[in-house]
Amino acid sequence: MSSPFTLQNKAFSGLVFYGSLALVKTAVMSEWTGYFRVKNRAFANLEDAKMFAGKDKDKQKESLRKDDQVERVRRAHLNDLENVVPFVLSGLLYVGTDPDPTTALWHFRVFLAARVLHSLVYVNGVRQPSRMLTFWAGLFTTLSMAYRTIRAVC
Amino acid sequence: MSSPFTLQNKAFSGLVFYGSLALVKTAVMSEWTGYFRVKNRAFANLEDAKMFAGKDKDKQKESLRKDDQVERVRRAHLNDLENVVPFVLSGLLYVGTDPDPTTALWHFRVFLAARVLHSLVYVNGVRQPSRMLTFWAGLFTTLSMAYRTIRAVC
Amino acid sequence: MSSPFTLQNKAFSGLVFYGSLALVKTAVMSEWTGYFRVKNRAFANLEDAKMFAGKDKDKQKESLRKDDQVERVRRAHLNDLENVVPFVLSGLLYVGTDPDPTTALWHFRVFLAARVLHSLVYVNGVRQPSRMLTFWAGLFTTLSMAYRTIRAVC
Repeated sequence: MSSPFTLQNKAFSGLVFYGSLALVKTAVMSEWTGYFRVKNRAFANLEDAKMFAGKDKDKQKESLRKDDQVERVRRAHLNDLENVVPFVLSGLLYVGTDPDPTTALWHFRVFLAARVLHSLVYVNGVRQPSRMLTFWAGLFTTLSMAYRTIRAVC
Repeated sequence: MSSPFTLQNKAFSGLVFYGSLALVKTAVMSEWTGYFRVKNRAFANLEDAKMFAGKDKDKQKESLRKDDQVERVRRAHLNDLENVVPFVLSGLLYVGTDPDPTTALWHFRVFLAARVLHSLVYVNGVRQPSRMLTFWAGLFTTLSMAYRTIRAVC
Repeated sequence: MSSPFTLQNKAFSGLVFYGSLALVKTAVMSEWTGYFRVKNRAFANLEDAKMFAGKDKDKQKESLRKDDQVERVRRAHLNDLENVVPFVLSGLLYVGTDPDPTTALWHFRVFLAARVLHSLVYVNGVRQPSRMLTFWAGLFTTLSMAYRTIRAVC
């Protein structure tokens, strides 16, 4: 068998495309957190407060605090790490089993759509079960890939 | 040299198998956290409390709290992210150096066993040094793979 | 096209080398956290306090606390997870597009240097914008790889 990890393989080039987008989407959460930290003056480190909260030392210390909006984006970010990273890893192992490209591509598309929605729903605090559904959709595609992967090597 | 990333290579198919299991095991921690959140009525988001803590607004707000058991599972989950993900990544790079399959397989087996034990020991608060030993066993296999990988390309 | 994932490919062997170093560097953060937990007597779990904070039960309970230095190393560690892991994953997808090895190698080198500096700057609380610059340097290399990867398959 030749290696499945070449761009000629539609399953691999699909993972390269959707996986990269999912990783960029996760990286955006860092910037979003930073945006709310500066906007709401809520920092975790004194050196950040010194830079962004003005010269007044009392104001700097006051801004060393937890902010609901910041913590919400951070939870959404952590949730991405818990889901996007295992997705790309499971995807790599799954592609290693040389799966049907169409099946593989639909896994990747559903996952990316689910996670983009998940972040929007999470950061805006949309009522449940919105977030739960987007979370489960993403997890389901990862577990489905892992199941197919494990079955392929057993 | 032909690509080591084919299922004919026992080292790669082993990583596919044990790596997928380790990722599924990590995904289970999310569900475990969710289970304790609902059981102990301890949520991080108001929209979750609205869904799972009944109609009473006071009870909803009361349930926006940290719970020892929930935080413990979350720490175990975070520890998985800190260890399982680097393991699979180091494993992929290690397999890329075309290692001896038997040596590779034992790395993967020891790692998976160590991490399953780690989670059980952590969530149940078994006395130390149980958790430390399972943690070190997992870390040791990852560092051993990384060491062999770096040596192979130097 | 033959597989880009062989050690003959300088881009892949570079990722194997610098990626493994970056993962080892991330693993070191766990040990650094543990060192400050024991040194400053600040634990997250009662079973840890029982082992490291002496026989006195009051002292054990007192040591179940958050410590500034420990939390700082933990934030640096979490930041590594948020950046090193996506870097290695993006790197694998990027190498899959068979990039120019010299360009690829410089991405890997800049990233590793940026992240080593980031941790030193973070843990020692060096004044901003030091940490911001090292953070952006690392993120920039990851996004640059992701951009090149997505463009290669479009």
